[in-house]
Amino acid sequence: MKLQGIVAYPITPFTGGRVDEVLLGRIVDDMVKAGVHAIAPLGSTGVLPYLSDEEREQVAEVVIQRVAGRVPTLVGVSSLTTERTVHHAKFAEKAGASAVMIIPMSYWKLSDAEIVSHFDTVAKAISIPIAVYNNPATGGLDLSPDLIARLLRIPNVTMVKESTGDVNRMHRLVQLCGEDVAFYNGSNPLALAAFVAGASGWCTAAPHVIPHLNVELYDAVRRGDLEAARRSFYRQLPFLQFIVAHGLPRAIAAALELMGTPVGPLRAPLQPLGADRVDELRRILADLAVLPAT
Amino acid sequence: MKLQGIVAYPITPFTGGRVDEVLLGRIVDDMVKAGVHAIAPLGSTGVLPYLSDEEREQVAEVVIQRVAGRVPTLVGVSSLTTERTVHHAKFAEKAGASAVMIIPMSYWKLSDAEIVSHFDTVAKAISIPIAVYNNPATGGLDLSPDLIARLLRIPNVTMVKESTGDVNRMHRLVQLCGEDVAFYNGSNPLALAAFVAGASGWCTAAPHVIPHLNVELYDAVRRGDLEAARRSFYRQLPFLQFIVAHGLPRAIAAALELMGTPVGPLRAPLQPLGADRVDELRRILADLAVLPAT
Amino acid sequence: MKLQGIVAYPITPFTGGRVDEVLLGRIVDDMVKAGVHAIAPLGSTGVLPYLSDEEREQVAEVVIQRVAGRVPTLVGVSSLTTERTVHHAKFAEKAGASAVMIIPMSYWKLSDAEIVSHFDTVAKAISIPIAVYNNPATGGLDLSPDLIARLLRIPNVTMVKESTGDVNRMHRLVQLCGEDVAFYNGSNPLALAAFVAGASGWCTAAPHVIPHLNVELYDAVRRGDLEAARRSFYRQLPFLQFIVAHGLPRAIAAALELMGTPVGPLRAPLQPLGADRVDELRRILADLAVLPAT
Amino acid sequence: MKLQGIVAYPITPFTGGRVDEVLLGRIVDDMVKAGVHAIAPLGSTGVLPYLSDEEREQVAEVVIQRVAGRVPTLVGVSSLTTERTVHHAKFAEKAGASAVMIIPMSYWKLSDAEIVSHFDTVAKAISIPIAVYNNPATGGLDLSPDLIARLLRIPNVTMVKESTGDVNRMHRLVQLCGEDVAFYNGSNPLALAAFVAGASGWCTAAPHVIPHLNVELYDAVRRGDLEAARRSFYRQLPFLQFIVAHGLPRAIAAALELMGTPVGPLRAPLQPLGADRVDELRRILADLAVLPAT
Repeated sequence: MKLQGIVAYPITPFTGGRVDEVLLGRIVDDMVKAGVHAIAPLGSTGVLPYLSDEEREQVAEVVIQRVAGRVPTLVGVSSLTTERTVHHAKFAEKAGASAVMIIPMSYWKLSDAEIVSHFDTVAKAISIPIAVYNNPATGGLDLSPDLIARLLRIPNVTMVKESTGDVNRMHRLVQLCGEDVAFYNGSNPLALAAFVAGASGWCTAAPHVIPHLNVELYDAVRRGDLEAARRSFYRQLPFLQFIVAHGLPRAIAAALELMGTPVGPLRAPLQPLGADRVDELRRILADLAVLPAT
Repeated sequence: MKLQGIVAYPITPFTGGRVDEVLLGRIVDDMVKAGVHAIAPLGSTGVLPYLSDEEREQVAEVVIQRVAGRVPTLVGVSSLTTERTVHHAKFAEKAGASAVMIIPMSYWKLSDAEIVSHFDTVAKAISIPIAVYNNPATGGLDLSPDLIARLLRIPNVTMVKESTGDVNRMHRLVQLCGEDVAFYNGSNPLALAAFVAGASGWCTAAPHVIPHLNVELYDAVRRGDLEAARRSFYRQLPFLQFIVAHGLPRAIAAALELMGTPVGPLRAPLQPLGADRVDELRRILADLAVLPAT
Repeated sequence: MKLQGIVAYPITPFTGGRVDEVLLGRIVDDMVKAGVHAIAPLGSTGVLPYLSDEEREQVAEVVIQRVAGRVPTLVGVSSLTTERTVHHAKFAEKAGASAVMIIPMSYWKLSDAEIVSHFDTVAKAISIPIAVYNNPATGGLDLSPDLIARLLRIPNVTMVKESTGDVNRMHRLVQLCGEDVAFYNGSNPLALAAFVAGASGWCTAAPHVIPHLNVELYDAVRRGDLEAARRSFYRQLPFLQFIVAHGLPRAIAAALELMGTPVGPLRAPLQPLGADRVDELRRILADLAVLPAT
Repeated sequence: MKLQGIVAYPITPFTGGRVDEVLLGRIVDDMVKAGVHAIAPLGSTGVLPYLSDEEREQVAEVVIQRVAGRVPTLVGVSSLTTERTVHHAKFAEKAGASAVMIIPMSYWKLSDAEIVSHFDTVAKAISIPIAVYNNPATGGLDLSPDLIARLLRIPNVTMVKESTGDVNRMHRLVQLCGEDVAFYNGSNPLALAAFVAGASGWCTAAPHVIPHLNVELYDAVRRGDLEAARRSFYRQLPFLQFIVAHGLPRAIAAALELMGTPVGPLRAPLQPLGADRVDELRRILADLAVLPAT
C-alpha cells in the first residue's frame, strides 16, 4: 500500500460529551464520496490526545467500518508512553486499519535513540505499515531529516508526514532516501510547494469544507498543469491559512457549524472560535462559494 | 500557607513496573529529615504525565501520608483536559495536600482565555491554594508575566513557579504583582539569581543528592551573606547544570543508583543515561564528596 | 523595466588587495554570454559592506560598462546610514544602472517607520527603480510582508528580493500586492518553490559555476514542464545547499579557484574555505561535470 | 588596569550634523563628577557604526582629553573589516585610551576561527588591553562562552562585556576562566543578577540620567547589603527596561532633551522617540525625581 493524494483528517464530533458515532460516520462518508484518497482518523484535528482510551478505540472502529475499504485508512495511535502506543497500534491493526500514524510526543524531550527505540518497539508489535509524523508545534519534538531517514530503515516504517512547514526538509528527505520516498505534507499552506517537491500526498482537514478544491490541486499537479495548480492553490490559500492560524479543531468546528453541521463543543480547555474570527471565516467561505455571499 | 525555601521534587521509583511505595516513602522521608521546606510529588521529576490515573493517586497518597504534616505538600495535578485536572485536584485536596500545582499542557496551543478558564474551573472546584507552573520546555506553552498576573487574581491561585530560566520574567512579576508576590524558581542554574530577585523558594530535584547544599544556599541568602551564597551556588552549579542538561528523571535516577539506591527503569520511551554521562556524573558527585573520589 | 529570470550576482575579485577590474569584467561577460537575464553587482556575494566607498564606485562602473546594456543591471547601494545610501544610489543612476537594490541594514534595530523613511528618502533622490532586499540573516532586520507591501507603494520602489527562505512570505506578498507583484527569490534552495509560487526571478551567485543549469530550471518552469523543472532542481540542489551553508563569497571563491580562476583572498575577517570543505565542493562539482571526476 | 564598577557610555551629540565637542565634553565631565568608574566612548550608545572614520577619531580624542586620566577610558574601535579595526585600535592607543573594546560585526556570519584571527591581529598591533564585546542583538554574531574563553587566552585580551542578557553565560565564564575573570554586564536589566554572579562592572548608558542610583547599586553589592541592592535595583528598573526596549541612543537622547540638554537629531535612518513614548519616559523620570512630578 502506498498512499497517494488527499489524505483527509476527520474531526471527532461530540453530542452530550460523547463521541457522536452517527455524525462521525456521515462526515467520513461525505469525504470519501467527494473523492479524497485516504481517511486518517485520530489525528490532530480529531483531537486524539484529548480522548480517553475507550473513545480512541470507538473512533477507530467507527471510521474503519464506515470507510469499508473504499480508500485506505491511516489511524493515529500516538501516546506519550511506548506501552500505550503499542496498545493502540495493535488495536488499530485488529480493527482493520490500512496503516497507523505515530507522532512521538514529549513532556521530557527525547533523544534520537529513545525515538528510534519507541518506533522499533511498535513496529515489532504490528504487521501493517507505520507513518512517522513530525510536528514540533504539537508534539514538542523536532525530528531531523537524518533521524527520519533512520526511522524509515525500520522494516514496516514506510511513510513520513512532515508538518514543519519547511520545504527544505522535504528536499533533504528526497536526498537522503531517494526520490521514491513516501513523504506527505502536513502543513496546509505548503500544499503546492510540497507536491512540486515530490510529496506523495497532502494530509489535511480541509476536505471537511473544500474537498473538490483539494482534489483539483492534486490533479493539476499530477497532470503537470502548473498554471492550473497555482490558480487552484491561491484560491484555497486564505482558507488554509485561516485553519492553521486558529487551530484545526476550532476552525473546522466553526466552519461545519456555519455550514449547518454543528459538531458539539470542543473538549476543555479548548474553546470555540471567537465571534470576530467566525465572521472572518464566514467571509472566506463566502468567497469560496461554500456559503452564500453576505 | 506561604511556601518558603527549598521545595523538593521526589522522583517516582518503580519496582517491576509498579510504583515502589516503600522506596518512595523513604526518599521523601530522607528529604524532610535533611531540612527541605516542602515536598512536591507528581512534578516533572516525578514523571507525572507518564503515570496512569491510578498511579497518580497512589503517589499522592503515599507522599502525603509519609510527610504527615511535617512540611507542606504541593501536589502536581496537571492533565491535558480540564476535566481530568479537576478530578486530580479534588483527589489531592481530599488526600490532604497543602496545595496543588498545575502546568497548563498543550497539544494544541491554548489562548490566554483558554488558560484562564482552565485555572478558573479548577479553582472553583477546590478550596486549597493553587500554584501556576510555567515551563514551556515541557508543557509547550509559555505564560507571559501579564497572563500569570491575571491568573494570580483568581482567588485561590496564590503562587507561581517560573521555569523559563529568564530572571527578567521574575522582575516583571514583582513589578506587576508587588514585592510580596509568591514566586518560585524552577530553573536550577538560576537558583542564586532568583533568590536575589526576590523568589520565595526554589523548586528542585537536587535534594535527592545534595539537600544540605540546597538549604545552605537558601540560608545564606536569607541572612544576606552574599559571599557565602555565591560560594555555595558555584559549588553546586555543575550538578545543577548536569541534571537540567540531561533531563531530571534520567539524571536523578542515575545519581541515586550511583549512591546505592536504584529506583528502577524509567518508563519508555524514556531511557537511562548513557555510560559516558554516568561517568561524568560520577566525577561531579565525587567533587561534591557525595561519592568517594575515584 | 521588469526583471525576469536569472539575476546573477558577481563576486568582487581582488589582486594585491585591490579590485581586479579585468577579472571582474571577464566574470560578468561570461555570465551574460551564458544567458543570464540580469547582472547585480555589489550584492552580498560581491561583499558590498566590506568595500570602501571608492571601491564600490569602481565596481559599479566596471560592471555597467562591461554589460553595456546587453541585460539590465541591478546595483547594490546599501549603507548603514541614509545619507551614504543616497550617495551611492545617485552614483549608480549616473553610472547607468538599470535599477538599484537596497537592504536596510542594522546595528540598532529599525522601526517600520524608520525603514519606510529610509526608502522614501532614497526614492526621492533618484529616478530609476528600486528593489527592496529582505535578508535578516545578513542585514539583521526582518521586513514583514506587510511592511514590504507598504514600501512597494513608494512610486519607484517596484521590486522585492525575498531571502528569508520561507515560501509563505511569497504567498503573502502575492495576496497583499496582487499576482503581478515583482518578487524575486534570494534563497537558492528555494529556487523551484519560489518560481512555482510566482517569483519573477531568482537572484543567485550560482551562475559563476552552473549558469546553464540555472537557466534550464527557469526555462522549464516557464514552459510549464514540472517534471523537467524538478529534475533540474534536484540536480543542482547539492551545489546550492553548499554555497548557502558556507557563505556565498567563500564558496564561490573556492569554486572559481577549483575551476582555474583564482579571485584573490577574501577581505579579513573573512577567510577562505577550509580544506575539508574544498574537497566536498570538488566532489559536488565533479558530480555536476563542472570538474573532471576524481 | 582592571576596570571595576560603573562603566559609563556617553552618547555622541550633534549640532548641525557635526559632532558637538563642547557638549560631548560636558556630558563626560558630568559623568566623572557623578562618580562613575570608567568612561567608554564610541559604544553602541555613541552610535559608533554610524560615524565616519574622522568623526570616530574626533570623539576618541575629545573624550580621552576631557577625562584626563581621572578614570580609565575604554574606547570602541570595532569595524566590519579587520584592517579598519586595527586602524582605529592604533589610533585609540596613540590618543591615550586605557583600553579598547571590540565587537566582532557581521554581514556574513563569521566562523570561530575567523573571530579568533580578527582579535589576534588587532591584539598584535597594539599594547593596551582589549575587551571582547558580545552582543548578538547589534553585532549579529553570538560568541559562546567557550569562544570567549579562547579569546581571553590571547595575551592582551583581558576583559569581556556580555550583553546577551543571560546570566547563565556569566556562570559559564566563571567556570571556564576562574572566578577572577574580568567580565562586565552590558544588559541593563541584568545589573543586579550579574553583580551577584561576580561581574566586575556594569556597562551602561544610564549614568546620563541616574548616575547616583547606578553607583548606589554597585556600592550596595560591594558591601554585601543584599536588601539595599535589591531595593536600589527595583527602583531604577523601569528606566533600565525603557532604554533597552526603545534603543539606547533614542531613549537617552529623549531623556537628555527632557532634562534640558538637547543632543541634536540622531543620524538617519535612526529617528527620535515618538511622542507617546516620550510621555512614558517623562513619567518614569518623574517617579525617579529626575523630573518634577507632572
